[in-house]
Amino acid sequence: MRPSGRTASQIRPVTITRQYTCHAEGSVLVEFGNTKVLCNATVEEGVPRFMKGQGKGWVTAEYSMLPRATHTRSGREAARGKQGGRTLEIQRLIARSLRAALDLKLLGENTITLDCDVIQADGGTRTASITGACVALVDALTYMRSKGIIKTNPLKHMIAALSVGIYEGTPIADLEYTEDSEAETDMNIVMTETGKLIEVQGTAEGEPFSFEELDELLKIGKHGLRELFDIQKAALA
Amino acid sequence: MRPSGRTASQIRPVTITRQYTCHAEGSVLVEFGNTKVLCNATVEEGVPRFMKGQGKGWVTAEYSMLPRATHTRSGREAARGKQGGRTLEIQRLIARSLRAALDLKLLGENTITLDCDVIQADGGTRTASITGACVALVDALTYMRSKGIIKTNPLKHMIAALSVGIYEGTPIADLEYTEDSEAETDMNIVMTETGKLIEVQGTAEGEPFSFEELDELLKIGKHGLRELFDIQKAALA
Amino acid sequence: MRPSGRTASQIRPVTITRQYTCHAEGSVLVEFGNTKVLCNATVEEGVPRFMKGQGKGWVTAEYSMLPRATHTRSGREAARGKQGGRTLEIQRLIARSLRAALDLKLLGENTITLDCDVIQADGGTRTASITGACVALVDALTYMRSKGIIKTNPLKHMIAALSVGIYEGTPIADLEYTEDSEAETDMNIVMTETGKLIEVQGTAEGEPFSFEELDELLKIGKHGLRELFDIQKAALA
Amino acid sequence: MRPSGRTASQIRPVTITRQYTCHAEGSVLVEFGNTKVLCNATVEEGVPRFMKGQGKGWVTAEYSMLPRATHTRSGREAARGKQGGRTLEIQRLIARSLRAALDLKLLGENTITLDCDVIQADGGTRTASITGACVALVDALTYMRSKGIIKTNPLKHMIAALSVGIYEGTPIADLEYTEDSEAETDMNIVMTETGKLIEVQGTAEGEPFSFEELDELLKIGKHGLRELFDIQKAALA
Amino acid sequence: MRPSGRTASQIRPVTITRQYTCHAEGSVLVEFGNTKVLCNATVEEGVPRFMKGQGKGWVTAEYSMLPRATHTRSGREAARGKQGGRTLEIQRLIARSLRAALDLKLLGENTITLDCDVIQADGGTRTASITGACVALVDALTYMRSKGIIKTNPLKHMIAALSVGIYEGTPIADLEYTEDSEAETDMNIVMTETGKLIEVQGTAEGEPFSFEELDELLKIGKHGLRELFDIQKAALA
Amino acid sequence: MRPSGRTASQIRPVTITRQYTCHAEGSVLVEFGNTKVLCNATVEEGVPRFMKGQGKGWVTAEYSMLPRATHTRSGREAARGKQGGRTLEIQRLIARSLRAALDLKLLGENTITLDCDVIQADGGTRTASITGACVALVDALTYMRSKGIIKTNPLKHMIAALSVGIYEGTPIADLEYTEDSEAETDMNIVMTETGKLIEVQGTAEGEPFSFEELDELLKIGKHGLRELFDIQKAALA
Repeated sequence: MRPSGRTASQIRPVTITRQYTCHAEGSVLVEFGNTKVLCNATVEEGVPRFMKGQGKGWVTAEYSMLPRATHTRSGREAARGKQGGRTLEIQRLIARSLRAALDLKLLGENTITLDCDVIQADGGTRTASITGACVALVDALTYMRSKGIIKTNPLKHMIAALSVGIYEGTPIADLEYTEDSEAETDMNIVMTETGKLIEVQGTAEGEPFSFEELDELLKIGKHGLRELFDIQKAALA
Repeated sequence: MRPSGRTASQIRPVTITRQYTCHAEGSVLVEFGNTKVLCNATVEEGVPRFMKGQGKGWVTAEYSMLPRATHTRSGREAARGKQGGRTLEIQRLIARSLRAALDLKLLGENTITLDCDVIQADGGTRTASITGACVALVDALTYMRSKGIIKTNPLKHMIAALSVGIYEGTPIADLEYTEDSEAETDMNIVMTETGKLIEVQGTAEGEPFSFEELDELLKIGKHGLRELFDIQKAALA
Repeated sequence: MRPSGRTASQIRPVTITRQYTCHAEGSVLVEFGNTKVLCNATVEEGVPRFMKGQGKGWVTAEYSMLPRATHTRSGREAARGKQGGRTLEIQRLIARSLRAALDLKLLGENTITLDCDVIQADGGTRTASITGACVALVDALTYMRSKGIIKTNPLKHMIAALSVGIYEGTPIADLEYTEDSEAETDMNIVMTETGKLIEVQGTAEGEPFSFEELDELLKIGKHGLRELFDIQKAALA
Repeated sequence: MRPSGRTASQIRPVTITRQYTCHAEGSVLVEFGNTKVLCNATVEEGVPRFMKGQGKGWVTAEYSMLPRATHTRSGREAARGKQGGRTLEIQRLIARSLRAALDLKLLGENTITLDCDVIQADGGTRTASITGACVALVDALTYMRSKGIIKTNPLKHMIAALSVGIYEGTPIADLEYTEDSEAETDMNIVMTETGKLIEVQGTAEGEPFSFEELDELLKIGKHGLRELFDIQKAALA
Repeated sequence: MRPSGRTASQIRPVTITRQYTCHAEGSVLVEFGNTKVLCNATVEEGVPRFMKGQGKGWVTAEYSMLPRATHTRSGREAARGKQGGRTLEIQRLIARSLRAALDLKLLGENTITLDCDVIQADGGTRTASITGACVALVDALTYMRSKGIIKTNPLKHMIAALSVGIYEGTPIADLEYTEDSEAETDMNIVMTETGKLIEVQGTAEGEPFSFEELDELLKIGKHGLRELFDIQKAALA
Repeated sequence: MRPSGRTASQIRPVTITRQYTCHAEGSVLVEFGNTKVLCNATVEEGVPRFMKGQGKGWVTAEYSMLPRATHTRSGREAARGKQGGRTLEIQRLIARSLRAALDLKLLGENTITLDCDVIQADGGTRTASITGACVALVDALTYMRSKGIIKTNPLKHMIAALSVGIYEGTPIADLEYTEDSEAETDMNIVMTETGKLIEVQGTAEGEPFSFEELDELLKIGKHGLRELFDIQKAALA
């Protein structure tokens, strides 16, 4: 029995609210249960220096937790003067994942920045960020086409992400904080709507896991991700 | 005629939503029209080193704008590695103002941190922060009494803040961005519910202003602040 | 009776020494009693990026206290690796005030930087800085005209600044440190020689202050500022 | 055909030189072909603050590339004033992996730091680091037992790491730089000598990969890792 | 013929003004011609962590140039967020030199910090700093004895410093900026009043120098340093 | 008797290994006994901004100690976020010395960066760095000529560096750590193969030293440096 009362493969209620703020070209509040992340997409002309002159666009991401998104307050990174390793690791994952959703050549020399700010955290903030940011990205692309900045839709496929893990010996999907903090193994899966993998990151927090357990985790993840694609589609309809 | 269509002394619709997030001891979303600020109050044992051993508490604040709270994206301070002068100036004002609302001796050697994160900006973010943070502070104090951390309520009086300014020669209240960016003079007033002043900051953005204009700005501000105190009271009822 | 033995409205002896150092285009040592600030004006071609192409000039300021300008040594900001909030707040005020003294269009695309370094502190360093920096600015403008960099004098009016406060219930002018540290209310006024306001910043350090007290503070400040303008004029004669 | 001329599952010649430097409690130069990493283990009394009082030890890691370990010089992180996201991500992985090799309770309140400095890079620096650091860790543990700092060997199992990837549609093991830069999918596997997984990180650099391809990558990785365990054992014999 | 019109061994007029500011335990303005450095000595209880428990005191130094001490404005280090290599090199030299003037055991576990702030620069700022700081140090020691903090004078001998160099093939003493910027060799000598060396730093700026030239530089330096000791003594009389 | 068993003027066995790593244009491992420094030379087109348009090249250097190059681990500067004063002082010395070896006009507008990374430290790391970096520089120049980047060899003369010091009253050459930590005086000499001086830095660590002792130190240094030039030559043969 999970602390959340959910079945092993059951994901939390997921809500995707578009146009959550008024200035961004794409603005999505994504909620996985009590985890709430604001994903804003910004379209800017030009690309970073290392990309110049290749006729291709760029997608980047920044991730942050509000100091009191968590049970106890964590110090503000701006006040400490640097972003922590966890933050950098997560925003690199978000950016890499979303770049894999686009044909960067069709984006022209433009940059889309995805700001994922965690308003409230209850496990799975990085996977919620990716899932929400993909919807914000689609809205930003629609904006770009409406303004004539791009002609062809660069989106190759939607992507979504889900956390899975081994909790008291059983593989479960979409861990909330109380489950996550006790899980032996923690895995994040980023998948395309066509059922292919963008990123798989599995970590033994306690005991090492077997190749068979990895297999089960992938299966349960794949199942939950199908649901997420349906929710994204409904939100974009 | 104001760009906003409001009369000179008319403030925007103000909404105060308590318990906006679930972890903080006080959590308020305050909205002044399109300006939306999340004010979270955190209670922690102990005080900063320079306050130790005085038997008094401390109130501090941190302020931040989400990168896309504004029309164009502004760089994330955590990524740049330092907080800008504007940020520091605002969070010093917020903290100073809220300290003036409390009898710090009654707080014991505890610290309350007010995190004011601007979700969406349309002028007046610092005054909205102070107005919302005071409500979050009250909730944090209630929490402290319920947990037996303090016995007596340290609140001396509610405080609220309002921006006023001279726009096309006329004093107006609660400027939104389009008004603010064109105003000749910009002033922030922090007042107690008993009608006394905590802070007055008036700045000539264009032409200098006369002592008479200052007087008019104070009057129009005082009027709008009365409304804010009613809205705070209603929210706390 | 004030600790300084002065009457309520009496300012300290003020000395303005021009050409204090030999390299700067304007170099002023300003003394308000024991408060001593070196104000150097530097003229440089060009403007910051955000001002380029507007045909206008820029005025900026930097403020610093030598570590042992005060009773106890304060850590050097360069060694700590960042400027504190108080420093940033003050230098923003100095720069804003001095920009209000000039018609930036007549300055051409040139920048004047005012470095205000506090050699010795005894209260009122920010107002002394503004008062002295305005004289250094005038010398820098004279230099620019003599070199043919500008043709018309961009100075609209002299500005000066004075601190006022409520000490033991009485409004007093030009607080020195022992008065300042005990004052209930502290206010800085930046005024033009034509009697208009550039900046008003009043803060309740202890008890909130009434609108009537604010009025009295403004009056006493206006009076002291008239004296400062005479001293500036004499120094420039 | 691989650019390296190797067969798909063939790893590079791997050399492990112990006692490479004279001061560290464990000092290993590990070479995977042209990739050369110096792994130094340092034993220090005490644990970081967040671990204090739990009677457990801690293992941490730092990773760095010498500026000219690569084809073109990359800026020195110490000179830039911060470690990049890639560096932080890698050193977090190394530390996490090695912690999984130990029973931290048997380590007592001591800390082992693993410094992995890349002398020369040709792909696979993070997996080489883990593989070499595990040997340095064993030497540090031996040192600790010889000094009576610990009584029981905390090592649960050796760990090693290998990179695998899909190159021109074929899964290959132990990619060198020319292969890595062209690979569609890149995966790092950290395994125990008992054949269980510590960490799996697979990333689609170009096209997404299928669950079947993931399976093949895991198989080829498992095979290569067996060889690495033999090399570690020989080095420690 | 020197640009300064001085003879080869002639030093500039040197002035030492004690009690230049009112707060520091020792406060000296030292002038070597147009080079003006304010040297403030601060006495504080305790020593840095690495010195604790040895029953010895510590002397440290910080050096800074005001931004407009020089012909063109140099960026403020506090604003850039770090002290440059030149600054660190100079303040290490000043501190090392002054530590050599004291018997640190007689200082008790107290720290003296010497802040050397260059008000105006015209060559030789580091040697002027050392020469002036030694006088400020003596005043701080007198203060310590008068307060009963120490009983015995820890001063072993006065120290002073002088720059010498090879200019157009001729060794000269006490270079001013125009001479320094053209000199082939630049050397700083720190000496005790008893004629022994604390520090010798000679650098070929252009052509390498011979052992014979080094000898001549030492001789001319020794001669000028004798004069500096007389000036220090007169100032302390 | 020296702790090392060497005679007063005897230097340690010195080894220079060229092409130590495969990517750099010059790559030298230099060993002075147990002191081992990797000196990599990188050739890059262009010069720093302050050198542009003068038709001259630039030589710069960076120095670092691996955290466990020493007996106890020293914190990684990249992790601390800044380079220490000692590091900056040393890398400025290395760069200055090597610039003195070249005719920068013959280098064209190109930059050579010398990265000196200390693998293992046992005293004299800065002098070993200079001695090894000069060989790496020669290899980089050979590379530049072979690629047609430069036509004429800019090398004016080889340079080498040696530490000397006074140990138990006797001048000795090439101090290792146990000697260095007990030496009363420490001196570094950088010389050209033609017997002229580039840099002399002598410091009294304990007692001041006499002009006669300085003379003896220079003599013993000159003698040891002759040996170093022979070893450089043999390595380059």
